[in-house]
Amino acid sequence: MASEAMISQRVRAVPGPSVDLRRKPPADFIVFGGGLPDPVTHPVADLGALMAEILAANDQAVMGYGFSTAGDVMLREFIAARAGAGMGADNIVLTNGSSGAIGLAALTLLEPGDVVVCEAVTYVGALKAFMQMGAEIEIAPMDAGGLDPEGLAEALERVRAQGRRVKLIYTIPTNQNPTGATLSLERRLQVLRLAEGAGALVLQDDTYGGIRFTAAPPPLIALAPDRAIHLGSFSKTIAPALRVGWAAASPEIAGAMARSRVDLGVSHINQRVVARFIDDGRFDRHVAAATALYARKRDLMLRALERHCGKLAQWNTPEGGFFLWLKLTGADAEAVLTAGEHEKVAFLPGPFFSARTPFRNHLRLSYGQVAEGDIEDGIARLARALAAAAQG
Amino acid sequence: MASEAMISQRVRAVPGPSVDLRRKPPADFIVFGGGLPDPVTHPVADLGALMAEILAANDQAVMGYGFSTAGDVMLREFIAARAGAGMGADNIVLTNGSSGAIGLAALTLLEPGDVVVCEAVTYVGALKAFMQMGAEIEIAPMDAGGLDPEGLAEALERVRAQGRRVKLIYTIPTNQNPTGATLSLERRLQVLRLAEGAGALVLQDDTYGGIRFTAAPPPLIALAPDRAIHLGSFSKTIAPALRVGWAAASPEIAGAMARSRVDLGVSHINQRVVARFIDDGRFDRHVAAATALYARKRDLMLRALERHCGKLAQWNTPEGGFFLWLKLTGADAEAVLTAGEHEKVAFLPGPFFSARTPFRNHLRLSYGQVAEGDIEDGIARLARALAAAAQG
Repeated sequence: MASEAMISQRVRAVPGPSVDLRRKPPADFIVFGGGLPDPVTHPVADLGALMAEILAANDQAVMGYGFSTAGDVMLREFIAARAGAGMGADNIVLTNGSSGAIGLAALTLLEPGDVVVCEAVTYVGALKAFMQMGAEIEIAPMDAGGLDPEGLAEALERVRAQGRRVKLIYTIPTNQNPTGATLSLERRLQVLRLAEGAGALVLQDDTYGGIRFTAAPPPLIALAPDRAIHLGSFSKTIAPALRVGWAAASPEIAGAMARSRVDLGVSHINQRVVARFIDDGRFDRHVAAATALYARKRDLMLRALERHCGKLAQWNTPEGGFFLWLKLTGADAEAVLTAGEHEKVAFLPGPFFSARTPFRNHLRLSYGQVAEGDIEDGIARLARALAAAAQG
Repeated sequence: MASEAMISQRVRAVPGPSVDLRRKPPADFIVFGGGLPDPVTHPVADLGALMAEILAANDQAVMGYGFSTAGDVMLREFIAARAGAGMGADNIVLTNGSSGAIGLAALTLLEPGDVVVCEAVTYVGALKAFMQMGAEIEIAPMDAGGLDPEGLAEALERVRAQGRRVKLIYTIPTNQNPTGATLSLERRLQVLRLAEGAGALVLQDDTYGGIRFTAAPPPLIALAPDRAIHLGSFSKTIAPALRVGWAAASPEIAGAMARSRVDLGVSHINQRVVARFIDDGRFDRHVAAATALYARKRDLMLRALERHCGKLAQWNTPEGGFFLWLKLTGADAEAVLTAGEHEKVAFLPGPFFSARTPFRNHLRLSYGQVAEGDIEDGIARLARALAAAAQG
C-alpha cells in the first residue's frame, strides 16, 4: 500500500526546514549553528547526584504519571513565583521544552483559518506548529529594535480588512531568534495595545530569555496577564535533554492546555530534578556563571568579527541569548554556507528562519555551543568563506 | 477578556474523563485504579546509577536535542530488533510514552472527517487524540475474546455505506484496556484483512503488552508490516516517569511522524538510560521478575474474587497486563464507586472507558500498583461496596 497517501494534508502541507539542523557536524568543523548551550555549562555532576537521590526515594508522585497533567506542583510554584505578576501554580503548565509548549498552545488555541502574525524571521518550528493546526501565517516586519509596531498595526489592519481573524501574535521580544534583538518596554506596550484592539492573544516565546547580560524589559505577561502567554524553557539554562519547559497563562488557558494534552506530561523525574536544583539555590548560581561565560563569548565574537569581517558584514550587539545576526554586504548566505563547508565552519543561513521573504543576505551565528577557544579561528574561517562567496 | 472564548473548538468539543485519574487517593485507600506498575518493581538503583554515569559522560548526543527527531539510534535499533518483522531504526519513532505516540499518530494521519473505528471500551485518551484532529469515532463490539471481527465488518460496512472514510482501526489486541482480553491469531488476521478491504491502517496500542504470563499471538505489524502501526511503552515495564514509548511503522509513516513532531523529541537522557538498561541484559531480567510478581498478584486477585465476590460479579482471567474486567450482577458501577469511597477502596467504573454505551454494569480492577499484601483486604472491601450498592 502507498503509505505516503495516508499522511494527513495537515502534515504534508508544512514545508520541511531548509537545513537539517540535526545532522551531526564533522568533528573538525567549528559550529555556530544550533541554539544549544555550551556543553561545559551542563551541571552534570549536580544533575546526576539529584537524579540518583530522587530515584532512590522511589516516590510514586515522581515515578508515576504525577497527580496533575499540568506537572509537578513544586516546580510550577517556583516558575510562577519567578514570573511575577502574582501568578501561582494554576497559571503554569509544564511541557516537553518550550517547543512542546508551542505545540500545545497551537492545539489549544487555533482553529483552521485563524491567522497567526509572526515576525519576519523567527523560530520556524513554531510556524510548523501553527500551520499543522490549520492557521494562516501573516508577517510583521522587524527592524534593529525587533518587531516594528507600525508594521504590526498594518499587518493587523490588512487581515481585518480581509475579514479574517487574528488569533495570535507570536513574538520573541527578548533575545530574538535569530536576530538577537530585544524589544523596548514602549514597543511591548504598543504590541499589547494592538493585540487588544485586534482581540488577539500574544504568545511570547522566551526560550532564550534566561540568558541576559543586562536587565530586560518585563515579560509581556507581567504587563498584561490576560492578554499574553509566556513560554519558557530550562533547555538553554540547564540542558536540552531534560525536555522541561513551560507555558504561563491565565488559569483558564493554562487549564485548557493541561486538559488538551494527550502525552500524559513530561518526565516527572526530570521535573523534580529541576525543582530541587532551583530549590537549594544552585540554579541561580549556575545561570549566573553560565551567563558570564556567554557574555565573554559574545565579546570574543564581536572582537573577532571586527577583526575579520568588518568589510564583509554588519551585525548587532545582543544583550542576551546566543545569537548574532549578520547582514552580508556582498554575498548570498547559501553561497557562504557552501564556501563554509570548504572552510570547515557551520552556521545557519537567513532563509532557514524566513516565514516568507528569504533573507538571503543574512545569516545567524550562535555562540552558545561553540567552545570559547574556537571562536577566533571560527570567525576567521567565516571571513574566508564570506570573501570566497562574494567573489564566486 | 474572556479567555474561555479563545479555546479552540477542537479542544472544547472533546469531553473530559468521567473520573479524575490524577487525583491523589487518600493514604488509607486500597487502590485498584490506574494502570500503573507496582512501585516495588521500579529499578531505581539501576536507573540512578545509569543516569549518573550517562550524565558524567556529558556526551552532546545525549545532553542536547540528539541528532534525529526520531530519537536515540541505539534504542531504536533495540526496539526494532525485538519487534521482529525485519525492522530497523528507520521504522521506529521514540515518543513521550505510548500516549505521545497516539497523539503523534493522530496528528500525522488523520484528516477532519476521517473515521476511526475503536473498541467499545478502550483507552479514552486515544479517543481524545482522534477527536482533537477532527476524526469521527465509530464503535466495534467486543466479546470475551476481544474485538469481534463480525461486528467490525458491520461497522466498516456501515461507514462505507455512509460514504465516509475509515482511516484507522484503533485496537488493543493484547491485554486489552480495560477488559484484559487477548485477541487470537485467527481474529488478528481477520482484522487485518478487514482493514485492507477498507483501505484503513490498524493502530495497535501495545502499552501493556510487555507484561505476559503466556505467549501472546504475534503483534499485528509482524503479520502485516505495511498495514499496522505498533505503539509500545517502557512505562509499565520500567516506570511511567521516564516518558519513553515508541511507534513502529513503515519507514514512510515513521518518517512522517518524526517530521511532524513539534516538541523536538523525548528526553535523550531517559532514552539512553533505557538503551543501556536493555543493552546489558538487565531489562529482560527485570521484566521477567516483574512479570512473575504480576502473575502472583493476578492469582491473588482471582482467589480473593472467588472468595468474596462470586455471587456479585463475573470476571475474566487475563494472560498478561494489569486488568480484570468485572461484570456486575446487581449493581451500578457508579453506585459501587460511591460505596467504595465509604469502604476505602478505589477502582474505575465501566463508563470511564466507554466510547458510547456507558457499560454501567462493569468495572475495571488493576492489580498493577496495589501492594501484593493489600489485595485480599481490598477485594473484601470491594465485595462490601458491591453488596451495599446492590441493596441501595
